[in-house]
Amino acid sequence: MDSYLIQVNGCGDHAPVLDVHLKTNGNSLPLGKVKGRKPRWAVRASEMSKRTFNPVRNIVDSMKVEPNPKKSMISLSLGDPTVFGNLPTNDEVTRAVKEVLDSGRYNGYAPSIGYQSCREAVAAYYSCPEAPLEAQVPAGCSQAIELALAVLANPGQNILVPRPGFSLYKTLALSMGIEVKLYNLLPEKAWEIDLKHLESLVDEKTACLIVNNPSNPCGSVFSKSHLQKILAVASRQCVPILADEIYGNMVFADCKYEPIATLSTKVPILSCGGLAKRWLVPGWRMGWILIHDRRDIFGNEIRDGLVRLSQRILGPCTIVQGALERILHRTPPEFYHNTLSILKSNADLCYAALSAIPGLQPVRPAGAMYLMVGIEMEHFPEFENDVEFTERLISEQSVFCLPATCFEYPNFFRVVITVPEEMILEACSRIQEFCEMHYQGAEGAQDLECDK
Amino acid sequence: MDSYLIQVNGCGDHAPVLDVHLKTNGNSLPLGKVKGRKPRWAVRASEMSKRTFNPVRNIVDSMKVEPNPKKSMISLSLGDPTVFGNLPTNDEVTRAVKEVLDSGRYNGYAPSIGYQSCREAVAAYYSCPEAPLEAQVPAGCSQAIELALAVLANPGQNILVPRPGFSLYKTLALSMGIEVKLYNLLPEKAWEIDLKHLESLVDEKTACLIVNNPSNPCGSVFSKSHLQKILAVASRQCVPILADEIYGNMVFADCKYEPIATLSTKVPILSCGGLAKRWLVPGWRMGWILIHDRRDIFGNEIRDGLVRLSQRILGPCTIVQGALERILHRTPPEFYHNTLSILKSNADLCYAALSAIPGLQPVRPAGAMYLMVGIEMEHFPEFENDVEFTERLISEQSVFCLPATCFEYPNFFRVVITVPEEMILEACSRIQEFCEMHYQGAEGAQDLECDK
Ligand SMILES: Cc1ncc(COP(=O)(O)O)c(C=O)c1O
Ligand SMILES: Cc1ncc(COP(=O)(O)O)c(C=O)c1O
Repeated sequence: MDSYLIQVNGCGDHAPVLDVHLKTNGNSLPLGKVKGRKPRWAVRASEMSKRTFNPVRNIVDSMKVEPNPKKSMISLSLGDPTVFGNLPTNDEVTRAVKEVLDSGRYNGYAPSIGYQSCREAVAAYYSCPEAPLEAQVPAGCSQAIELALAVLANPGQNILVPRPGFSLYKTLALSMGIEVKLYNLLPEKAWEIDLKHLESLVDEKTACLIVNNPSNPCGSVFSKSHLQKILAVASRQCVPILADEIYGNMVFADCKYEPIATLSTKVPILSCGGLAKRWLVPGWRMGWILIHDRRDIFGNEIRDGLVRLSQRILGPCTIVQGALERILHRTPPEFYHNTLSILKSNADLCYAALSAIPGLQPVRPAGAMYLMVGIEMEHFPEFENDVEFTERLISEQSVFCLPATCFEYPNFFRVVITVPEEMILEACSRIQEFCEMHYQGAEGAQDLECDK
Repeated sequence: MDSYLIQVNGCGDHAPVLDVHLKTNGNSLPLGKVKGRKPRWAVRASEMSKRTFNPVRNIVDSMKVEPNPKKSMISLSLGDPTVFGNLPTNDEVTRAVKEVLDSGRYNGYAPSIGYQSCREAVAAYYSCPEAPLEAQVPAGCSQAIELALAVLANPGQNILVPRPGFSLYKTLALSMGIEVKLYNLLPEKAWEIDLKHLESLVDEKTACLIVNNPSNPCGSVFSKSHLQKILAVASRQCVPILADEIYGNMVFADCKYEPIATLSTKVPILSCGGLAKRWLVPGWRMGWILIHDRRDIFGNEIRDGLVRLSQRILGPCTIVQGALERILHRTPPEFYHNTLSILKSNADLCYAALSAIPGLQPVRPAGAMYLMVGIEMEHFPEFENDVEFTERLISEQSVFCLPATCFEYPNFFRVVITVPEEMILEACSRIQEFCEMHYQGAEGAQDLECDK
């Protein structure tokens, strides 16, 4: 596998762009059109397109390393549970779509906010008596997040985003001219939010607070009481919440997932989700946005804004929309349990193996599909930072993990745990070999000290 | 059928939003956050969401009329060929998607600009030796247009848009803060562009020229020589072209479709298309953007911008992407011919019937799925304008056609010709009854004159 392919696998959670045979522009600097003079060609890309980028791509693209040709490549970098074929979706899911295709009744345009039946099916599935809601169905959770940001924030406003956190928030915000303020998660408290820090960031320009639970990249799951404290901050500061719950319900048996909206009657919440992860079909681009607004604070204005914006967007593929109700109702509970028990078992294996390695500090995950690993950089004086650490892990061991600088969190790396068990084990043993090779114990560290 | 349903059918070319049970905001005016004071809830929708609207919706929503309860409703308003079931897609199209589903290999994330195989299949299908191209695959032609506008234009710039024309151009432009300049099409010249007018609108802020061929709402098809004249304007003024060719190849036997990019080596062109119309699956949201740039004027900059922007968008459903190559290769030619012969026959019937009606001036279509009909308003003094004319046509005859004010072209209405033949005939005979009832000949017109 060549370095090109590493890049292809490298884009965090969305498969990255393939190279597009970029041509070089042979001309010298294009000139703007000047009135009265003969027009010249000067086609420039828009400012917005220049502001739009994926930070993960930038980092991964700069990692120009070749894997070790003597070892087969193991990529633990991509948040796509389908890549290795060990986690197929359920037959009922596929069957539902085939039935819709056969019916021939779902080929036309759906309303831009989604078929009514589809919206009602999602709303019913996620409503509980204490938290009634309305739903729209955009094309994937990413588009749900885009819609939510687009309706809540104006250019020049800011949003509060977790650090470490999923890079799409920043990509979207910068593209829209919205400022990003990062609040800290605390690894020593199982990645709970530093609530003081969070609250200190709120100002009069804060448009919303993004809460991602369960978390990418942390694999953490917030307790009910922690969620209540987050809600208390939002309520005190009157900041609406954008809840990214794409990993909703994907928690291991020993803990419980609480949709944040069920815990507040006051705070208005837009909750974003989709089929991608729990149903293992990320390519299908089926998402939803759930409007929780028991005090009518969003009111007409936000609902109407979401409807207006959806006219630009036109929703997911109708054959998936048409199948959604069946997918939600027919997928057997064993399917979800099975996925989770595989994830849990991989998480345990990986956590145990990495814990035993000197210089690494894995944080035990409780859900989602990831595990974060701290690097005691003082014990690896050869490496500048997590990017260099993971680069060398590729060139020496052909194991690819994303450096957590991709998530604004240096000196960690992220492991994806949806890969087959034997791959996890092989990867962990190679990581061990790598660390043992480069680890400098207290003595080594002292040696360095003495050099000063 | 109640007036609600009329509204649902009324949204021109995309199925409209359904009502969403808007709540009224019981609070008085929300107050902004003031530093130092206690925060209050004041969640406002963004400026962009307020700028985003579909002009067709606004007009149709204001048409609050009930159809005549004694006559069944006939809606000739929606540019969705699937609504009446008389134009199903081809079995090969459905089969291709089912094979992809069965393979289980297309459930993961695709690259944000599309699977390479899918992009290559489209590029190969539309490339000809004289016009090589590259392709990206957004979710529908609408998203292709959005991408093209987003990469070419900054807020404050302007785009040149046909009048009459498809309303999405304006919806997108206003949402993005881009100014719209309308150039005239000439009904007396089979809806050719008024080239003088077009050229007079170009200024130093013109970001692109939108050419829609074959046309919605006109059903017109430009000749090779007319396209060459349009290209000459673009070339003289150095304005890139956004070609909306979603109805590409959908032309009746007696005329020929020329993709505009095949006729120019100079002018850089982004051509937008998709499966929606020719393959009769608009709900599937599969589109493409073809980059024609033989002189390398777009260069890296625009290509790179498109790639960056696609990271916000993430492309069409992978099971349709995965099927695209098969769809393009396997759909039998008879399928396309059959669709076109039905459209042509409906167009002829409708044109003949409406031509015979006093006071109406239909323009014979040559392709796409529409026919525009001029109303000699001086002979219908009862009605203020096309909106009132079409409103009354609903309340008296239960026939719904879109007033061409929806396309910025008053005193015309648009007929969709994808409906079953007997419906077209029944609709035409009701339109005849309606016109005979309200027509005022030369005498009547004189009577009015005398009143003055
Ligand atoms: C936290 C988080 N939110 C949202 C998404 C996007 O989900 P979708 O594929 O439905 O757009 C991802 C994908 O990796 C994610 O990790
Ligand atoms: C002229 C024109 N362009 C673009 C579109 C949008 O096509 P799609 O459904 O692929 O987004 C339509 C749909 O009616 C149209 O009439």
